[in-house]
Amino acid sequence: MTQKAQQLVNTEISNNGPLQGLFVVDMSTMMAGPFSAMMLADFGATVVKVEEPKGDPSRKSGWPVNGTSVWWRVFGRNKETVTLNLKHHRGHELMLKLIERADVLIENMRPGKLEALDLSPEALQKLNPGLVILRVTGWGQDGPYSDRASFGTQAEAMSSFVYMNGQPDGPPTLPAITLADNAAGYLGAFAIMAALWHREKNPAHKGQVIDMSLFEALFGFFGPFVPAYEKLGVVIKRKGSRSAAFAPKNIYTAKDGGFVAISCAAEQVVPRLFETMGRPELYKTEKYSTVQARFKNIDELDGLIQDWIGQHDRDDIIARLTKSGVPAAPIYSIEDVFADPHFKARELIKSAPADDIGSIAMANVAPRLSDTPGALRWSGRALGADNHKWFVDELGLSEAEFAELKKAGAI
Amino acid sequence: MTQKAQQLVNTEISNNGPLQGLFVVDMSTMMAGPFSAMMLADFGATVVKVEEPKGDPSRKSGWPVNGTSVWWRVFGRNKETVTLNLKHHRGHELMLKLIERADVLIENMRPGKLEALDLSPEALQKLNPGLVILRVTGWGQDGPYSDRASFGTQAEAMSSFVYMNGQPDGPPTLPAITLADNAAGYLGAFAIMAALWHREKNPAHKGQVIDMSLFEALFGFFGPFVPAYEKLGVVIKRKGSRSAAFAPKNIYTAKDGGFVAISCAAEQVVPRLFETMGRPELYKTEKYSTVQARFKNIDELDGLIQDWIGQHDRDDIIARLTKSGVPAAPIYSIEDVFADPHFKARELIKSAPADDIGSIAMANVAPRLSDTPGALRWSGRALGADNHKWFVDELGLSEAEFAELKKAGAI
Repeated sequence: MTQKAQQLVNTEISNNGPLQGLFVVDMSTMMAGPFSAMMLADFGATVVKVEEPKGDPSRKSGWPVNGTSVWWRVFGRNKETVTLNLKHHRGHELMLKLIERADVLIENMRPGKLEALDLSPEALQKLNPGLVILRVTGWGQDGPYSDRASFGTQAEAMSSFVYMNGQPDGPPTLPAITLADNAAGYLGAFAIMAALWHREKNPAHKGQVIDMSLFEALFGFFGPFVPAYEKLGVVIKRKGSRSAAFAPKNIYTAKDGGFVAISCAAEQVVPRLFETMGRPELYKTEKYSTVQARFKNIDELDGLIQDWIGQHDRDDIIARLTKSGVPAAPIYSIEDVFADPHFKARELIKSAPADDIGSIAMANVAPRLSDTPGALRWSGRALGADNHKWFVDELGLSEAEFAELKKAGAI
Repeated sequence: MTQKAQQLVNTEISNNGPLQGLFVVDMSTMMAGPFSAMMLADFGATVVKVEEPKGDPSRKSGWPVNGTSVWWRVFGRNKETVTLNLKHHRGHELMLKLIERADVLIENMRPGKLEALDLSPEALQKLNPGLVILRVTGWGQDGPYSDRASFGTQAEAMSSFVYMNGQPDGPPTLPAITLADNAAGYLGAFAIMAALWHREKNPAHKGQVIDMSLFEALFGFFGPFVPAYEKLGVVIKRKGSRSAAFAPKNIYTAKDGGFVAISCAAEQVVPRLFETMGRPELYKTEKYSTVQARFKNIDELDGLIQDWIGQHDRDDIIARLTKSGVPAAPIYSIEDVFADPHFKARELIKSAPADDIGSIAMANVAPRLSDTPGALRWSGRALGADNHKWFVDELGLSEAEFAELKKAGAI
């Protein structure tokens, strides 16, 4: 451990999270597995990230700050980091010692690769019957595509998200964020807790294996679209910012060029909108009194709303609509998010300590637990920062052995 | 309970989920809260959905099948359903009796409304100190916007998702799915389990309150964008289907008009792509050998890839790329999802029993737990289907009282 890393450990923000005492080994790489592991760490679990000695790929994934990518700095946060060469027999041995103590193992190799490393779930659960193993893959552990290379992009493309995303006269459009990995990050953390809950309530105290595919994690977001197709033949096409389920919903342009998003997801919002426009009579006309009628006349209705909004500045429109109880919002860039007073008051963005650069801002832990909130204790640490702690202090290597394994490339 | 509903209960698919024995009261409405509650029910918890006597708004939320919306049929699945008028003193009393037995309460009223119903978290936790309460709002329980009406659209608009979503020359674009609610659905289920875990490990066995805002749940998906702005001033603009972090990534058009999504999220994929194109030399040229260089020459590079793909049919291109280990995917509509052989093999879509229409298809429970998998036991039930079970059999009302409360509008 470098002196700076040591300082960081000494000054760390106290851990008051609900998952204190839980021990997680995270050997997964970009991005769903590390995201699930980060959530457990955010809420207080001890998470040891096991990297190859050459470093996790996310350390080099773009947007470097002082040579280390922001991806690592975020998804490595609140974790302790060690390096292990799992193909070296001493590295493999140390991995088994970590897993022996673990409640949870997270991995994201293609099906069969973990087994090829002599770390099959069967063997690991013989070593540690309480172990919960989250296995993250693009396609799942079985089925015709299970051997395929995969990234979240495929899940986004094949889930119908991309087919529906974009303007009616434009091409299908991928999202700008790693959507499938994000969904899987949240879902994997839940599934781990569900399996742990069962273990605690089960007299045999047994763990189990969780088979999570990125595709299936994202597809959980398409609930109503499945029966709508099966029973009604509904296939939603790209509709820009309009909704397939209700109307009006769209993004309009204000006088000053700012954008305003309005959504009438509940029927009672519609008359409020018309009143705010100074046109309460619209809700009484046949054209606009029901959702079916508004769908039929949506071009005309969107024209009326655009005419009204085009006469006022963005912030004025949003203030009026907000006052009337109509959900309305500006379109924010990340810069705008930083500046917003509500987000400042809620501490949406917070600085995490960083051993080499002082601190770095990231999205705060969410949601908030009243008694045992999570915390940003530190950002992703330097490569091997916790090797000495884990291999010498915890697993009992001598200083000589530690130096030898380092030299041999086992750690 | 109707005779048909009774039949359903008698023939239900057995519950082998990890959360058996957990008791959840779900008084939340569209869509994040009901989604979290559905996940707990999918994995075996007993979830009692408490609706207003006139019915949950999701029953009428569009795409009706035999008069009941698919939204209700999906998000009501695996739950037992009762009606209660919380403004009637007998309805309120029955609610307290349910909450007294509960591990979890889920609500999504605006801040202060639960308190106005005389159901403040403080009072409920006095009644039941182990109670975990998930409070879902658009903006959180405090801060300058906490009183505002809100839907997920605002979170999507203000998170920077919409700002980055769309073509470079097109408008910002809302997603076609209820993205913020979906993210919050997954996150809320995790947070509940984390709070329950703490309760079990804590000698005082105390529950706590979870303050979850839709905005913050979605903003967790923007991890690396926050420090990229803080440290590097990066503000990502709309780039169509290209990535801001690596290249190439895009959607290309095949000879037969089909779309192909390709993502080189890992560097080793790039030479594989060039080899499959029959142009291995590209990776050796200065123009395309590094991610920085490829970004600089992205229009030209995308042109080369498009030229190649435009000479072949979609399925041929995908087969070639897949064989070479390049992640590639077609753009699927929901109809295509139903037809795909891998998804069929994995039982991605499954029929859930429905008392009035036999069965209805929906996304299967995910992920898969090896020993205690979740199951689709039934789809959203008829209004008040479980009133008799809960109010007479469980809470001890006489048949006469039950009839009387029904008549009085308390249930």
